[in-house]
Amino acid sequence: MSYTLVIHGGAGNITPAIMNAQMEADYTAALQDALRKGSDVLKKGGSAMDAVVAAICEMEDNPLFNAGRGSVFTKKGVNEMDAAVMDGRTLEAGAIAGVRNIKNPIRLAREVMLHSGHVFLSNTGASEFALKQGIETATDEYLFNKSRYDQWVEIRDTDYTQLDHKGDNLKGGPIPNTGHKFGTVGAVACDAAGNIAAGTSTGGMTNKRFNRIGDSPVIGAGTYANNKTCAISCTGHGELFLRAVAAYDVSCLMEYKGLSLQDACDVVIKDKLVKLGGEGGMIAVNAKGEYTFCFNSAGMYRGMANSAGEEIVAYYGQ
Amino acid sequence: MSYTLVIHGGAGNITPAIMNAQMEADYTAALQDALRKGSDVLKKGGSAMDAVVAAICEMEDNPLFNAGRGSVFTKKGVNEMDAAVMDGRTLEAGAIAGVRNIKNPIRLAREVMLHSGHVFLSNTGASEFALKQGIETATDEYLFNKSRYDQWVEIRDTDYTQLDHKGDNLKGGPIPNTGHKFGTVGAVACDAAGNIAAGTSTGGMTNKRFNRIGDSPVIGAGTYANNKTCAISCTGHGELFLRAVAAYDVSCLMEYKGLSLQDACDVVIKDKLVKLGGEGGMIAVNAKGEYTFCFNSAGMYRGMANSAGEEIVAYYGQ
Repeated sequence: MSYTLVIHGGAGNITPAIMNAQMEADYTAALQDALRKGSDVLKKGGSAMDAVVAAICEMEDNPLFNAGRGSVFTKKGVNEMDAAVMDGRTLEAGAIAGVRNIKNPIRLAREVMLHSGHVFLSNTGASEFALKQGIETATDEYLFNKSRYDQWVEIRDTDYTQLDHKGDNLKGGPIPNTGHKFGTVGAVACDAAGNIAAGTSTGGMTNKRFNRIGDSPVIGAGTYANNKTCAISCTGHGELFLRAVAAYDVSCLMEYKGLSLQDACDVVIKDKLVKLGGEGGMIAVNAKGEYTFCFNSAGMYRGMANSAGEEIVAYYGQ
Repeated sequence: MSYTLVIHGGAGNITPAIMNAQMEADYTAALQDALRKGSDVLKKGGSAMDAVVAAICEMEDNPLFNAGRGSVFTKKGVNEMDAAVMDGRTLEAGAIAGVRNIKNPIRLAREVMLHSGHVFLSNTGASEFALKQGIETATDEYLFNKSRYDQWVEIRDTDYTQLDHKGDNLKGGPIPNTGHKFGTVGAVACDAAGNIAAGTSTGGMTNKRFNRIGDSPVIGAGTYANNKTCAISCTGHGELFLRAVAAYDVSCLMEYKGLSLQDACDVVIKDKLVKLGGEGGMIAVNAKGEYTFCFNSAGMYRGMANSAGEEIVAYYGQ
């Protein structure tokens, strides 16, 4: 079975200076586990969509990443999670924003796609749908993570928000340097049938308020897939990815301008987003199994595994 | 002052059979009022953004349209409103989803753009932000509309949802024909400085559940503006516009493929969306003041006014 699976665990100020040998070992194991879970699906002839969900579930269950179990805390001290999936074969999509107490938000996004009649559900309504569909819930205790909590406590009495992997914040001023660097997760895959799919899951920004929605659950911004062009999952400063309609922009540059997957990602991430002031990255795959990691930040937790037996796990700049 | 202002009040099954002389007079007056409010801004050298907000506020205040005061009821019998604005000069954007008790959701969307540090806020969080910023609220009584209420009562005990201007529903089966046809509103404008802007506001679908978010507040799907290409506001079956990333697709077809405004809108609305099964329409303007109405449904409430003194108000097929 021919396949390609690409994952990310967030982009940002990821440098050797903030890592150590133990952290490198932990992240390597975590990314390899996710690659294995997704590859197991693809090896058996499973769909790109199922592989994307399997890989992301593994990262959601690992507190190292800002998604699912490792989600950061909002201004009110709770976890509010966003996720989306898109199927490149059918252009079907499902997304959720601001849901609480769901073990695997990516599964809920897929359930929205398959059984809601809608594309995008939010907040308590999305939770009601999850309950109705029998999606697995998680207690506050399960979702609690001491390092995320401490990260929040340091800035909860301010108006500051904190992006993962970034030393500054959305208000332009300094915040205490917490030293905790974690990230949004995503996966894209091409399966043996040549179908592609994309998914993204995140806890958003530490100390976020007002039920803020970032780019992750927005089809076209943080997540997009179309067999004709590419499957994309983004991570970074969500507001800028939203304004840039970043994921769909890559698809359009390929479809309408004839750019390669790599060139299209480079235009969006390394030119257009830089000009807008947007830091972050994306992973991409096309229906031929070609893939790329692309980021304008210091690093991005990332991995790739394919049917040729290649496996890549990396963190720092290209 | 050279300017162009284009508005819509929803697309769908709008035919002479569902209208009468009184309704035609009411809609004509409502659309003319909105054109006047927006044009007054532009005549004085105001910005496209301010004109868009002024025109949309007028329609939000008129119970004829499914936005602001005329918003439809959700499954729980409340009004939950979505809105977005985007500034084509700066690519700044603001959006809100699922807010209650706000008199003019479009003003709140602009406030998000200007003063939140974010792009997209939702539900009670968006309301908290509104309160903090002193945005005008509205009581349930103000937002109550008997015809909307009756429309909801007829289907509230079912799983059906109802799109405005459409005789069927998202579940594929029949619903009681309420005879009430109302719509999402939107505006796009080009001002004397050659800047363009877009805005959209809606109450969504009658009997909607699960804090469903449609295309209206999603940048790139229902609303988009970029001075280089076009300003777009969509209306129709939101789920399909989300999957098609409809508004940004028009922009990309112009920027990357060199299509005219009209041709780009035709490709998206009359070809791509039709193939996906998506009914609806859009209004568009570019920085030269060229504009178009484009829809694949029987009709669209629409209007245009410009500095040459032309004024168009129409409902039925082109």
